[in-house]
Amino acid sequence: LDAPAMEAARRRQAELTKPAGSLGVLEDASVRLAGIHGTCPPPYPDEFVVAVFAADHGVVASGVTPWPQEVTGAMVENFRRGGAAVNVLAAEAGGTVVVVDIGVVGDVDEDAVVWSRKVRRGTADLAHGPAMSRTEAEQAIEVGIGVAAELVDAGYGVIATGDMGIGNTTASACLVAHFTGLPAEEVTGPGTGVDDATLKHKTDLVAGAVGRLAEDADPIDVLAEVGGLEHAGLVGLVLGAASRRVPVVLDGVIAGAAALVVRALAPDAVDHCFAGHRSTEPGHHAALALLGLRPLVELDLRLGEGTGAALAFPLVRASAAVLRDMATFDDAGIGS
Amino acid sequence: LDAPAMEAARRRQAELTKPAGSLGVLEDASVRLAGIHGTCPPPYPDEFVVAVFAADHGVVASGVTPWPQEVTGAMVENFRRGGAAVNVLAAEAGGTVVVVDIGVVGDVDEDAVVWSRKVRRGTADLAHGPAMSRTEAEQAIEVGIGVAAELVDAGYGVIATGDMGIGNTTASACLVAHFTGLPAEEVTGPGTGVDDATLKHKTDLVAGAVGRLAEDADPIDVLAEVGGLEHAGLVGLVLGAASRRVPVVLDGVIAGAAALVVRALAPDAVDHCFAGHRSTEPGHHAALALLGLRPLVELDLRLGEGTGAALAFPLVRASAAVLRDMATFDDAGIGS
Repeated sequence: LDAPAMEAARRRQAELTKPAGSLGVLEDASVRLAGIHGTCPPPYPDEFVVAVFAADHGVVASGVTPWPQEVTGAMVENFRRGGAAVNVLAAEAGGTVVVVDIGVVGDVDEDAVVWSRKVRRGTADLAHGPAMSRTEAEQAIEVGIGVAAELVDAGYGVIATGDMGIGNTTASACLVAHFTGLPAEEVTGPGTGVDDATLKHKTDLVAGAVGRLAEDADPIDVLAEVGGLEHAGLVGLVLGAASRRVPVVLDGVIAGAAALVVRALAPDAVDHCFAGHRSTEPGHHAALALLGLRPLVELDLRLGEGTGAALAFPLVRASAAVLRDMATFDDAGIGS
Repeated sequence: LDAPAMEAARRRQAELTKPAGSLGVLEDASVRLAGIHGTCPPPYPDEFVVAVFAADHGVVASGVTPWPQEVTGAMVENFRRGGAAVNVLAAEAGGTVVVVDIGVVGDVDEDAVVWSRKVRRGTADLAHGPAMSRTEAEQAIEVGIGVAAELVDAGYGVIATGDMGIGNTTASACLVAHFTGLPAEEVTGPGTGVDDATLKHKTDLVAGAVGRLAEDADPIDVLAEVGGLEHAGLVGLVLGAASRRVPVVLDGVIAGAAALVVRALAPDAVDHCFAGHRSTEPGHHAALALLGLRPLVELDLRLGEGTGAALAFPLVRASAAVLRDMATFDDAGIGS
């Protein structure tokens, strides 16, 4: 991040007609925006997009969720028609939704909303071996980098992460357990809803899969062994956006798990991220703590799709508006 | 609140294409909106307004803040010109700001933005006796009721509370201490910023003033003894909006303290309120706990003016959009 622009933003915040620091986290957000863009005030983000990476997970065969795998593809169609929560919440905030099929099992048509970037038809069951090959993980990261480039070229000033994939909180828990070093029990949660017996089974499965990983394993090997195709896509999305100095608003535990991979590969890229929200999933708490990101929204969401990031976007934009539009004490003729 | 409309909202939330309950507090907000309006889905609030009640406080003579009293009037002019944080944040969310001079010491011109409703030129110093007479407190409540009626008649679907008044966290601490029964040390905070010695002095002053009140004192007598004119105005605003079934988004500790008076007068009116945010002021935590309201935004704000309520409005509106616009499982052809 650009230190002089951040210092300029801090100075400007102190000159605006309010007690210093009284806008709390919103002031911090404005400083981060200035640092990402390298200018103060940073550009006001008129346009934002939620990039929803959709993929299936072989681990559903091991019984980690009551939802059938077909729901992933059905929800992609729901996104296409604009009926899902992320469509409604993105539209509320003036944003656009793009869906990237990076690994749905079934066939998915391409159009302006749904982009076909399938790397493979779902992962293998991570309970029994690698979810994908290292080459496939690298391909999925490249997809994400490419999607970021296309979205930046299309003029979006902020990119929010989204995800859809039945079974993806299991893969997320594996990534969080590995990168935080916390035991599976502390980072495995009910996801969108499982009973106690299933949660116990899911936790044991996570512990077993993470146990196959060396502590110092290469981050991309970790992603290939226990991650998901949408996690890999999101890793690329963050790397690609950061390389273009475009802010990313992370959604929930899936994005948080992907950001831990980013942190292991290129820690500076995480500085380009805002934590949109904190979900109820325990692994998300652990991920945000390690990432050092404070969530903007805490409303007990556990849906995913990018819903928390979409709700947070107005807060990020508001932080830019404060720097651009508020009067200073001098403007207002008030001694500070 | 209308129980059948709330039940209809809960049923509808369960039919939408997401795991039940996965939108957390946003679902609760949509149910409250349905209950306030008595319909499901509740009307989508296109227009909202922040009503900023401005008044001065005689207690500043007792040295509770480093800010001179003239700042209240200067900030009213800043609101008029659109340069304050609440102007910027309300505009971001598509809202309008109205300022009600209910007791600024100096002369304030009236126009479309600033409404002249002065009850008296600031309160008396509550450290040494009643801040105002009971009649004045009642007049100020009537002003608030009238403002609510005018705003509802003008078509605003949601009213957010705002406030401006140098010294008003001291009066707020008195109200919170009285209504919660907590000691002054637990509910008195630094406000917009005082040093340790001033905080100690402020706390002692609060304890002394609250000590003059009988535990079972009439709520309006409490308001007159230790409150502010803007607190009384906000009491009226909430009562007036609730009587018209219009939701109120409360801002910070000043609104929270006023809502405690509302709770003592007409507990059902509090059900028409959303807690926009939770400020860093300890009295606000205590007030929200007693009110039973969960804050929508928690970003360490301590500015007031209505800034937290303005930031929260998009979340309230989003909750209405979810009920109105999301597809059901039936619509999407997904078995739930």
